[in-house]
Amino acid sequence: MTLRIALVGATGAVGRLVLQQLDERNFPLQSLKLLASSRSAGSVIPFRGEDHCVEELIPESFDDVDLVIASTPDEIARSFIPEAVRRGAVVVDESGAWRMDPQVPLVVPEVNAHAMEHHHGIIASPNCSTTQMVVAMKPIHDAARIRRVIVSTYQSTSGAGLAGQQDLDLGSRAALDNQAYDYAAFSHPIAFNLIPQIGSAGESAYTSEELKMVHETHKIFEDDSIRICPTCVRVPVTNCHSESILVETDRKISTDEAREVFQACAGVEVIDDLTAGQYPMPLDCSGRDPVYVGRIREDLSSENGLAFWCVSDNLRKGAATNAIQIAELFASREKVAGR
Amino acid sequence: MTLRIALVGATGAVGRLVLQQLDERNFPLQSLKLLASSRSAGSVIPFRGEDHCVEELIPESFDDVDLVIASTPDEIARSFIPEAVRRGAVVVDESGAWRMDPQVPLVVPEVNAHAMEHHHGIIASPNCSTTQMVVAMKPIHDAARIRRVIVSTYQSTSGAGLAGQQDLDLGSRAALDNQAYDYAAFSHPIAFNLIPQIGSAGESAYTSEELKMVHETHKIFEDDSIRICPTCVRVPVTNCHSESILVETDRKISTDEAREVFQACAGVEVIDDLTAGQYPMPLDCSGRDPVYVGRIREDLSSENGLAFWCVSDNLRKGAATNAIQIAELFASREKVAGR
Repeated sequence: MTLRIALVGATGAVGRLVLQQLDERNFPLQSLKLLASSRSAGSVIPFRGEDHCVEELIPESFDDVDLVIASTPDEIARSFIPEAVRRGAVVVDESGAWRMDPQVPLVVPEVNAHAMEHHHGIIASPNCSTTQMVVAMKPIHDAARIRRVIVSTYQSTSGAGLAGQQDLDLGSRAALDNQAYDYAAFSHPIAFNLIPQIGSAGESAYTSEELKMVHETHKIFEDDSIRICPTCVRVPVTNCHSESILVETDRKISTDEAREVFQACAGVEVIDDLTAGQYPMPLDCSGRDPVYVGRIREDLSSENGLAFWCVSDNLRKGAATNAIQIAELFASREKVAGR
Repeated sequence: MTLRIALVGATGAVGRLVLQQLDERNFPLQSLKLLASSRSAGSVIPFRGEDHCVEELIPESFDDVDLVIASTPDEIARSFIPEAVRRGAVVVDESGAWRMDPQVPLVVPEVNAHAMEHHHGIIASPNCSTTQMVVAMKPIHDAARIRRVIVSTYQSTSGAGLAGQQDLDLGSRAALDNQAYDYAAFSHPIAFNLIPQIGSAGESAYTSEELKMVHETHKIFEDDSIRICPTCVRVPVTNCHSESILVETDRKISTDEAREVFQACAGVEVIDDLTAGQYPMPLDCSGRDPVYVGRIREDLSSENGLAFWCVSDNLRKGAATNAIQIAELFASREKVAGR
């Protein structure tokens, strides 16, 4: 069956990609409605050769919609989504507003597609840094059960939206010319610098971004006993998040076995030949959907540890692609249900 | 007493800083000789108001020299240093050529000044990524004994010398203008990218840079039982290396105690107020000597773990400053010995 889709936040960095992927992946669309705040309403976005006018989001927007894909800030998602659900739509939400709600499944299709069955109108997509990590963890967890994760991230500026990308571009130009630049999306200069804080200060001196990696991973694997120590760092990279990950497993998993299970896993691509200088890098992985894994090696500091390097396009698998995959799963299940 | 000093590699990124620090720190100089390859010989460098001509390094260069400070590639250091020692000079070497030689002390003055006593003419200064890590480890190790270290680095392009810095500058300009750029110091683009390889491919799928962090740390602490898992990554930052470090200790050390012992430690500065957005960042730490520590927090993944973020100027404490500190220690000991 085809679905009547509404896209909320169509003019943002992720929204644009969702639109592009609806087209590329030939999503079964019956109709498409583009919604945004009053500020963006009225702009025109081409889709499949037709101009679509962006409408202002109002409660009635959802009256003739089966599925909403929403990429908005948390506070917007908190306010409009209950209304959309009340009016009969199912919402795939990319914000952080609903992820930890016990009624809301938090889904990465390669990892826990089964969780979708129990939705009550909202299905949440995880934070970008979590999504790529759990995709990479999944085959190792299935093979040898992960007990502990230590992860340091290298997160691109596109994670802070179009303003973040523009900050890196304009801030870099200014720095190269010894000019001042007033950053819009970051509280410190990001050009040629690192900011070891993403999100706000949270409990135990961790940031909200770091705590998301802990809590969302627990929810997705339905296992709070996995112990996770994250450090999240913004780096002057335009797009793609990278992660230095060390996992400790119940039984030792060799690098050969790890490589095999990574390669066999949907959504994971292995690039791993250190001697040939081959490993995933943000510039190469940008604009692609897989989660890339490389630098696979035994942990030198524990018996059952495995270290690896993981790169993925945070706007695609970290956001738009994961939401579309959830929408595709929803569409295929609705079909089975004969709706 | 004053010393007759020769500086080898005076025209390089580190050599220039050594010269600057000899002046700033008012080093007890009797004479100063600047040495370099035939390519750089003849250039003129001002020092304390006088022009010094860079001479070509030949065996006789060392006949009237007490102490050599050398910043050269490994292969150069391997060939000229035995000759310098034969001719009576003591050499502080910043290259990797002699660090793991059992006859050669590997010294970070804040950590193992005592090791200098047993030199046989060569005293080595560690790799930049090791130096800042061991300075930060030292107070925690003294307080609670470190058993294990997991470290992911964010290393600046100045670690690859002047060519590395130029690559980032020119490569960034080219990328911003959608132009091609042919990198000289890196085998992959570094502008707006990450390269998860520093040095060559070594044993067990670790890089030479990563293995240096393991072996040099063992030698400096005289303890091979400290288990270390490093991941070394080049980032598009001009100067200062940053490290996300997790240590596991014999007994639990609280964040309050950790902050106290860090603050009491020579060479360490604490910048740690997440709520106020205060932590060490490369742009702020560049051009300074301390090892900066922040984001101090309990490891969420083990009982006795402590996580922190460490930034230091890799050209200063990571190279020039550490070498000068060794030279100062040498000068003060020679004085005691009454030479």
